[in-house]
Amino acid sequence: MGYGEAVAGGPLTRAHALELDRGDPLARFRDRFEFGDADRIYVDGNSLGRVSTDARRAMEETVNEWSGRLVTGWHDWIDVPQKVGDLLGQAALGAGPGQVLACDSTTVNLYKLAGAVLAARPGAVVADGDDFPTDRYVLAGLADAGGRELRMLRSDRVAGPQPDAVAVAAAGAALVVLSHVNYRSGALADMRAITAAAQAAGALVLWDLCHSAGAVDVELDAAGADLAVGCTYKYLNAGPGSPAFLYVARRHHDELRSPIQGWFSQADQFAMGPGYRPAAGIGRFMAGTPPVAGLAAVHACAALLAEAGIGAVRRKAVGLTALAVELHDRRLEPLGFTLGTPRDPARRGAHVSLRHPDAWRICQALIEHANVVPDFRHPDSIRIGLPPAYTRFVDVWDACDRLVALMGAGTHLRMPAAAARVT
Amino acid sequence: MGYGEAVAGGPLTRAHALELDRGDPLARFRDRFEFGDADRIYVDGNSLGRVSTDARRAMEETVNEWSGRLVTGWHDWIDVPQKVGDLLGQAALGAGPGQVLACDSTTVNLYKLAGAVLAARPGAVVADGDDFPTDRYVLAGLADAGGRELRMLRSDRVAGPQPDAVAVAAAGAALVVLSHVNYRSGALADMRAITAAAQAAGALVLWDLCHSAGAVDVELDAAGADLAVGCTYKYLNAGPGSPAFLYVARRHHDELRSPIQGWFSQADQFAMGPGYRPAAGIGRFMAGTPPVAGLAAVHACAALLAEAGIGAVRRKAVGLTALAVELHDRRLEPLGFTLGTPRDPARRGAHVSLRHPDAWRICQALIEHANVVPDFRHPDSIRIGLPPAYTRFVDVWDACDRLVALMGAGTHLRMPAAAARVT
Repeated sequence: MGYGEAVAGGPLTRAHALELDRGDPLARFRDRFEFGDADRIYVDGNSLGRVSTDARRAMEETVNEWSGRLVTGWHDWIDVPQKVGDLLGQAALGAGPGQVLACDSTTVNLYKLAGAVLAARPGAVVADGDDFPTDRYVLAGLADAGGRELRMLRSDRVAGPQPDAVAVAAAGAALVVLSHVNYRSGALADMRAITAAAQAAGALVLWDLCHSAGAVDVELDAAGADLAVGCTYKYLNAGPGSPAFLYVARRHHDELRSPIQGWFSQADQFAMGPGYRPAAGIGRFMAGTPPVAGLAAVHACAALLAEAGIGAVRRKAVGLTALAVELHDRRLEPLGFTLGTPRDPARRGAHVSLRHPDAWRICQALIEHANVVPDFRHPDSIRIGLPPAYTRFVDVWDACDRLVALMGAGTHLRMPAAAARVT
Repeated sequence: MGYGEAVAGGPLTRAHALELDRGDPLARFRDRFEFGDADRIYVDGNSLGRVSTDARRAMEETVNEWSGRLVTGWHDWIDVPQKVGDLLGQAALGAGPGQVLACDSTTVNLYKLAGAVLAARPGAVVADGDDFPTDRYVLAGLADAGGRELRMLRSDRVAGPQPDAVAVAAAGAALVVLSHVNYRSGALADMRAITAAAQAAGALVLWDLCHSAGAVDVELDAAGADLAVGCTYKYLNAGPGSPAFLYVARRHHDELRSPIQGWFSQADQFAMGPGYRPAAGIGRFMAGTPPVAGLAAVHACAALLAEAGIGAVRRKAVGLTALAVELHDRRLEPLGFTLGTPRDPARRGAHVSLRHPDAWRICQALIEHANVVPDFRHPDSIRIGLPPAYTRFVDVWDACDRLVALMGAGTHLRMPAAAARVT
């Protein structure tokens, strides 16, 4: 029996939440993370994950290695983006070796891969109006520069993109870019069906995995995926602005070339010859000198995830979000909330979106008066992120309990209605 | 009297080198750096600088801040690329506030700025055949993609680019990209004269400051510079793959737009609206989420440099390289070396290039048998990098002494003649 059923089957009490925690096979991983303020309930790990002792130690050890080895460290560091990429591929992404790189930011990686496709193939670019801004902006820039049509899907905000609609939009397109888990609603797209639909229409698909990597059992190879990018500072916990990753299925390596022809993507880098020739494999999607300390943190976090097992992480995410949905239905809906996340556990990631007309003030009141840290998303969503590695079922219970108390006391009504500025 | 004269005027003895160290106003900064192996003479800080206690502490403190503040840290981190950029501008680059960002890699920054110019202006791109590979490759990619001519200057390898030649090449060009200090020869280009020559011909100039930032008193604003990029892991000592920087003179902010339209470059980032509109100032050249721990190291290193003073750093670099040149002339030339660096102190940076037909084997012998770590550059150069913040005059003396002993013993003749693979 999965966690979802366990939650749905039990009584909706704090004692039951504690019982779920006692049976949690991932409970021991909580000790690997740092908790400064024991009272604080942090449900924004989907914006920025917590510090693990593994990540902290890895960064310290890299500084020690830099100190001791100086430039000779590069004999090993040079391969780190591919080694970390392979580990990420295995631990989090369902990607075989030689197809993932840890490098640059999500934005730059998206630019490199989308730019590579547009340079190689004619046709439009398809995005979703509800995709994360950086994706839409980057694609708009590439489409403008290349004189390509940018088609915007208008997917249902809660349900996310559907295979049929993608197939229609993908006709005559070079590339479709979609979020695997929507950053607001938490909707989990059907990667396999949508990829097949777009490919049948002649387009490649680039998946943004920012909100699924480390939270969902992504299966890039099995889904027949073409391309993907994502960050490592959310469910992978590698720190603010840690290096991102990119995935290019092996069958596309020869056709695609990064528009950014940096020396780390050159076939024979240290010959430093006159002409550029891209490296044979995934290395051709590198750009400049990789950030070694940041990559060490990503490596440590991917290793922790491999140890926990993405299957166990996914099962717990289903349970945590199921508890949040049930608490919404019984305790929050009467207070004017609506659920902004799919009810089918197979169609959502590891965060739940609670919609309320007063979401901004409620969010601020939770942070300032209840020591609960969620995240606001324009115009009316409170995101409750539930990273399975360190979030307890009782945290979900307590966060809801504090929210109900706050609404009862009308605390949020005394908060200023200000403009949003939350990452 | 400058250091150059002090060196040239004194006797060429170890005692004199020690005397120069006793009079060195920067001597106290050596204690801020880590030296694991006291016997090792590291003259490759121009590939990768040493760890400072400042940088180490800054990275630790950032992890503590991440641990304690979690996502709320972004209220301060969001401005870090500009704050660090301003400090770099003041401490190292001669750039007033609001014109420098610390972000991404040198490669990506070069791509953003060169791409911005090509999108805004017609005409060719001019580079130098002796520029660092990543510069040539990136520009070749941009020229190919945009159907632009790529003109290669063929500057004298030791003397570097000259204003007259640049003026000729820049006619009808949109952009000229040049290294301020050449990565092999150490030649320091006349930024003011070359910028004026290129501008008079109608082109903008983009300076690669990788080998001058933190070593030379760069005066971007005073030289009338248009654009610049550079790294922070050489003379700025911020660690392997630390964030790079970019400079755009304020007068170009409105005209130029980055080809990578990331959300951190958006005018109203957290509105997350449908359309992209670039931020008003230097922020429009950001891309994705900035690497906070890496930027903290850059900040600490820039602050250390500000404390030391770039003028004092430059004076010491002149002295250190003058001693290296004099040692070359008297002790190395008889052994078959030639000087690959300009003799005029005003025309060189902080490294000296020693050329020898057997450079590769000599370099390996120095590392493996003399505990001296220089750097080989294809085909025949040994680079002796002399970062003023932690290099002593006696280090220059001792490195030369060990080299002379090694040549006398023929140690290098017993090294394998292998292909180069050194960063």
